[in-house]
Amino acid sequence: MFALFSFVTGKTLCGRLLPQYLLPACNGEITTMSFLQDVVDILLQYVVRSFDRSTKVIDFHYPNELLQEYNWELADQPQTLEEILLNCRTTLKYAIKTGHPRYFNQLSTGLDMVGLAADWLTSAANTNMFTYEIAPVFVLLEYVTLRKMREMVGWPGGCGDGIFSPGGAISNMYAMLIARFKMFPEVKEKGMAAIPRLVAFTSEHSHFSVKKGAAALGIGTDSVILIRCDERGKMIPSDLERRILEAKQKGFVPFLVSATAGTTVYGAFDPLIAIADICKKYKIWMHVDGAWGGGLLMSRKHKWKLNGVERANSVTWNPHKMMGVPLQCSALLVREEGLMQSCNQMHASYLFQQDKHYDLSYDTGDKALQCGRHVDVFKLWLMWRAKGTTGFEAQIDKCLELAEYLYNKIKNRDGYEMVFDGKPQHTNVCFWYIPPSLRSMEDNEERMSRLMKVAPVIKARMMEYGTTMVSYQPLGDKVNFFRMVISNPAATHQDIDFLIDEIERLGQDL
Amino acid sequence: MFALFSFVTGKTLCGRLLPQYLLPACNGEITTMSFLQDVVDILLQYVVRSFDRSTKVIDFHYPNELLQEYNWELADQPQTLEEILLNCRTTLKYAIKTGHPRYFNQLSTGLDMVGLAADWLTSAANTNMFTYEIAPVFVLLEYVTLRKMREMVGWPGGCGDGIFSPGGAISNMYAMLIARFKMFPEVKEKGMAAIPRLVAFTSEHSHFSVKKGAAALGIGTDSVILIRCDERGKMIPSDLERRILEAKQKGFVPFLVSATAGTTVYGAFDPLIAIADICKKYKIWMHVDGAWGGGLLMSRKHKWKLNGVERANSVTWNPHKMMGVPLQCSALLVREEGLMQSCNQMHASYLFQQDKHYDLSYDTGDKALQCGRHVDVFKLWLMWRAKGTTGFEAQIDKCLELAEYLYNKIKNRDGYEMVFDGKPQHTNVCFWYIPPSLRSMEDNEERMSRLMKVAPVIKARMMEYGTTMVSYQPLGDKVNFFRMVISNPAATHQDIDFLIDEIERLGQDL
Repeated sequence: MFALFSFVTGKTLCGRLLPQYLLPACNGEITTMSFLQDVVDILLQYVVRSFDRSTKVIDFHYPNELLQEYNWELADQPQTLEEILLNCRTTLKYAIKTGHPRYFNQLSTGLDMVGLAADWLTSAANTNMFTYEIAPVFVLLEYVTLRKMREMVGWPGGCGDGIFSPGGAISNMYAMLIARFKMFPEVKEKGMAAIPRLVAFTSEHSHFSVKKGAAALGIGTDSVILIRCDERGKMIPSDLERRILEAKQKGFVPFLVSATAGTTVYGAFDPLIAIADICKKYKIWMHVDGAWGGGLLMSRKHKWKLNGVERANSVTWNPHKMMGVPLQCSALLVREEGLMQSCNQMHASYLFQQDKHYDLSYDTGDKALQCGRHVDVFKLWLMWRAKGTTGFEAQIDKCLELAEYLYNKIKNRDGYEMVFDGKPQHTNVCFWYIPPSLRSMEDNEERMSRLMKVAPVIKARMMEYGTTMVSYQPLGDKVNFFRMVISNPAATHQDIDFLIDEIERLGQDL
Repeated sequence: MFALFSFVTGKTLCGRLLPQYLLPACNGEITTMSFLQDVVDILLQYVVRSFDRSTKVIDFHYPNELLQEYNWELADQPQTLEEILLNCRTTLKYAIKTGHPRYFNQLSTGLDMVGLAADWLTSAANTNMFTYEIAPVFVLLEYVTLRKMREMVGWPGGCGDGIFSPGGAISNMYAMLIARFKMFPEVKEKGMAAIPRLVAFTSEHSHFSVKKGAAALGIGTDSVILIRCDERGKMIPSDLERRILEAKQKGFVPFLVSATAGTTVYGAFDPLIAIADICKKYKIWMHVDGAWGGGLLMSRKHKWKLNGVERANSVTWNPHKMMGVPLQCSALLVREEGLMQSCNQMHASYLFQQDKHYDLSYDTGDKALQCGRHVDVFKLWLMWRAKGTTGFEAQIDKCLELAEYLYNKIKNRDGYEMVFDGKPQHTNVCFWYIPPSLRSMEDNEERMSRLMKVAPVIKARMMEYGTTMVSYQPLGDKVNFFRMVISNPAATHQDIDFLIDEIERLGQDL
């Protein structure tokens, strides 16, 4: 006990205390509480620092440097609790502060305090979503939350089905899987050999997971037909109809259209009503990949951009993107109830016993592709309780307002060219920064090849200084441009100003 | 500030403090730290209580009761921080204490304190595994940890490939996907239509995810051929060879054998060396589903049960099962490097830019089926540092010793029948409890139909009393029996004794 107390007060005497003194060890309560409290103190410091603009977003090290900075290897012998705490501090030292107000690198940014608390509770509860028996509250909360999300999609009474899956790519794969099963249920037993050649349609700006899913499901990437987009990145419905007819003429069976609500790069919303009309006409499953744009359903001001989503057969919506829920939290919503169950169930009798003493409709695990499934719902549910729908709305409206602020600030500014014209529909603002040396150049190949290198160099410098992070990429015939996205509730107008200043500071000599 | 301090000290004055005062709100530091500390206090209490044998494992309520006990609905308006704390307390009140020393219900039990701390850190870091850019430390730790796991599988120098996936079912699906791609790489673009009819082989005792994967990948469940097992649940190699020849005669192409190291119900280990010989002879991908049994590789005493695993092409190994890592933590290990990448990559240029300033081999996201991917490695890595390999070994050896203790205790005890003879190979102990009223009955249909109902009733009573939880199921022509599994490091001989007493107490009148 003496050793113990000195550990609590941080004296060195107990630096050698081993993890085996923690619970479930006999009398391990105090050591455990002290250790976990020490970890929490480290985390609280990190969390508070994450929001401090005077700290770096990233303390960047190249992979080989980072491997040498610390001994990360796994050994036969245990470490002391003091060493474990040092491991935690070191890990956080090199981590990206994804909650930092100037972190704009991905669609998922920000760190929500209630979400974090909920994730901590989820870890302490450490259970699995397959049966009500072992996750009673979480199974009910999944039911309540998915129903609410379906209501917001516009399905009467929130009817339908759904699941929280490990990310948008898997949610989209579920949609493809279920669409195929709906049309040809025999595929489950007989495989693709027994059914006609299927084709799916999605826009050329859609997320790569549609192709990835087609490859995995044995459909093949060649059977994903990419529909042309307009200059804003929206699918052109007439091209969709043309390609459907073309496929049918070749004897292929169109089974899925995956429309996108909020494309990854442009933030474009496909015209869902026109697409729904076409899907109806040709009896094709309509999926809406709203992984990024689904959050706008929370906003009375912006939800019109998803008009027509209520006609979809399935919808992907990732609260871990625009709604700022900690990773991972992705929902797949399905209009027809029971289809997921028929498609995926295997009746494992060791898990889904039919003679249990409670209502078996709450044992939802057999409709999943996974067996064990992490509890992803609680953080969304608790955040929703904390903010209310109106709180999410305010948060999302603010991010969109910031994107408009950025757009207005740079659209006519010297040294900027917009990748597409007009106000952004989502928070994606795509632009080239043109360094002074390129501004008076003719628009020829040399300029292109120099411009191509600008964004990568600025980005590399940003990371080395650690001041901010924003993404870039080429797209089609367009060379590397910045894609700014704002999903971080911590960001303000001043952070947008800072980003512009920083791009100019780091790029003026290029 | 006045309101704030009273919130900290729990006075009612601040019960109305709203979540919007938390960070990133201006001057939100103190409110945030107080709130998170309050949550942590609730969690620490829960954690300590979890290990207290005088508390219930479960406070069971039927679904309709639980829906009525509390208002779980989502609303437009925000709740106060005090209400958020109440939500947390209520959720935990009805949660299953999966760390409780008498919780034996699933293959994943126990609550590791270092694992919990690591999961809390993972939540605070809130990032995504797709690129080094945004998860530098975690990407390196995945590299270090997977290499170490491959070493333990027995691949020279730990060479090969792998990924942490969202659970064993997905890991097994990956194996099937990669095996198919290895044999017919054109399937990625052309789909199953372009390749011959494939068949996979697995034992009749294998996990249902093999069939689930085949259904999803467009192979079809009919193409999964179930190989007969001996009375201990091990695949019979001669039957495997017979069925392979049979399939080839029909013109099908055998592409995968999924052997099981630790079956779900019996805990059986398939004879991997004999299976490896057959796979080699017929040039078939050998997968070992060691989701449950893989942990035994940590034990010098027990790892012989997986002899031959080093000859596999791929291995599933779930540290969240036998090693007690918090959910989810499942690894898929692949012997051939680069195959996962070729199989799954889609070259999304917005994520995997080729002109970054660091070594791109650390951008591992394109080999995954997922796009975003949760950080599952850190908890395993930190636990490994804390325990050392020897610590995991001791923990696993102890669980196996407890299973043997249970087996020895009941094998000749009045009122028990073992489902299969002989010492358990894993921690699965399968048995019937025969209530006194059935003990002198002839072994006829009436006895069977009464025995079938015994385990479900005892289990229902266990849950209602909340004293312990253990699983049961039928299997083939065997009516409901108990499947005891021990992966919980908190369990002791006394807890095994308690379980037996409890079964007898709850079942004696049946």
